[in-house]
Amino acid sequence: MPKDSYLVGLIGSGIGPSLSPALHEREADRQGLRYLYRLIDIEVLGVPPERVGDLVRAARELGFDGLNITHPCKQLVIEHLDALSPQAEALGAVNTVVFEGGGRAVGHNTDVTGFAASFARGLPDVSLERVVQLGAGGAGAAVAHATLTLGAECVTVVDAMPERAADLADSLNRHFGEGRAAFGSPDRLAELLTEADGIVHATPTGMAAHPGLPFPAELLHPGLWVAEVVYRPLETELLRTARELGCATLDGGGMAVFQAVDAFRLFTGREPDSARMLAEFAALTDAMAAPQ
Amino acid sequence: MPKDSYLVGLIGSGIGPSLSPALHEREADRQGLRYLYRLIDIEVLGVPPERVGDLVRAARELGFDGLNITHPCKQLVIEHLDALSPQAEALGAVNTVVFEGGGRAVGHNTDVTGFAASFARGLPDVSLERVVQLGAGGAGAAVAHATLTLGAECVTVVDAMPERAADLADSLNRHFGEGRAAFGSPDRLAELLTEADGIVHATPTGMAAHPGLPFPAELLHPGLWVAEVVYRPLETELLRTARELGCATLDGGGMAVFQAVDAFRLFTGREPDSARMLAEFAALTDAMAAPQ
Repeated sequence: MPKDSYLVGLIGSGIGPSLSPALHEREADRQGLRYLYRLIDIEVLGVPPERVGDLVRAARELGFDGLNITHPCKQLVIEHLDALSPQAEALGAVNTVVFEGGGRAVGHNTDVTGFAASFARGLPDVSLERVVQLGAGGAGAAVAHATLTLGAECVTVVDAMPERAADLADSLNRHFGEGRAAFGSPDRLAELLTEADGIVHATPTGMAAHPGLPFPAELLHPGLWVAEVVYRPLETELLRTARELGCATLDGGGMAVFQAVDAFRLFTGREPDSARMLAEFAALTDAMAAPQ
Repeated sequence: MPKDSYLVGLIGSGIGPSLSPALHEREADRQGLRYLYRLIDIEVLGVPPERVGDLVRAARELGFDGLNITHPCKQLVIEHLDALSPQAEALGAVNTVVFEGGGRAVGHNTDVTGFAASFARGLPDVSLERVVQLGAGGAGAAVAHATLTLGAECVTVVDAMPERAADLADSLNRHFGEGRAAFGSPDRLAELLTEADGIVHATPTGMAAHPGLPFPAELLHPGLWVAEVVYRPLETELLRTARELGCATLDGGGMAVFQAVDAFRLFTGREPDSARMLAEFAALTDAMAAPQ
């Protein structure tokens, strides 16, 4: 049988609303590939996250070509893999597993590469000398790795949990070299933003379930670029406010799409049409935002 | 997501040459369905047949809609299912598992229904008073059930292993009523065929690896119909000899196709185009028979 047939899936908890099946399958349709993307929701299945290794092994046996992995399995999956990409190794988190010929399971992180690709495309000319990042969770760790890989001189991580910010800064300094990362408490945000070139927002604030701004609007100023990780809605209150001020902005859709672009390429070895996938993503999110 | 997307597979040993993926996927393509049929070869995987229950459970968790099951797992799988169709229950063998809504795994046997459909289509008007069947293995059991379900008055089972023939006849009599089945040893074949209306051939003789006739050509006579289970090649030496004599014949391709027709219907709830699948099967076997 010709290898133009791909079976992939997403393992995670509460993933019903994921746009990944539609994004991957529609791009595959346009490339003339047989492609099926299945959601494997451990919450629905009643499977504990610690069993992710069993699911990965079974997926390989049953003919899957690869898997995306999301919360709460991105770290847990690592011990069940045979090798890691440099980004996954550095971050200690995997969002994409590829079953290579010969049966090897290799972990990648396309959150890192996807944010980097989205940033390079959407904010190609901005200064990266002093970057402030709000949020030191899983998404925060991925985008901080991406920003430093893109050449940011120093990323200062701010989080409501100061220890988490300190831990991430430590880990970034170990990986990228001393002085590339720092951390600060939220009460220093005003001071940090005054001197920053841009801010990466990586907390859930601005999502439908957490509306509002992650910090007071008056901390923004037109000299800042603003990169958002939240993508539902595509225009968060933070982005709207920043745009009204004249800031250069990057919405979270690009990261969502480019992590899928990179995963599609890893699964199939074929180059996806990222412009087409961006347009598809916009159409899907528009359809979801429309009144019922 | 719309339920026009189907993931199925075949669990068995040494199934690499199976035509099922092509048969199912091409019919699905013509119906506009997203459909992926994966081969899960336990020989390639190094998985013992006794682990079929683990594979079935994993397939359900990973989003499969159903499975075909073949040698050596058709009996072993039964204890891992929640319910059986009447044919599967009677035969004690399952070749199709459907994962129904709510998580139930239901076993069916489309070898039985497939042979019956093929017979009814290919030999609609023949007499079924006295049927001789050669071969009492797994395929033999399935086709004997089908022939009796179609209304055969008595099926006499002949096998090189007389005990196996006796066991099958016993089981058929228990299920269909005393006197519907008998058994005989191969040295009685000449006598049995003299008085028979037709013969069902269900041994491997005539396959590429086992060429030749399953019994001497002179035992055939023009009054017999001849139904073949072997389908590679489609025209076995038995069928060629019988056709030269003027016998009505049925090749094994019909059973192979109609078991897939019935499985496709069970997996999708949609009616396949059986004529189209027969033509597709003929094209596939022609392509395989062509010189390399």
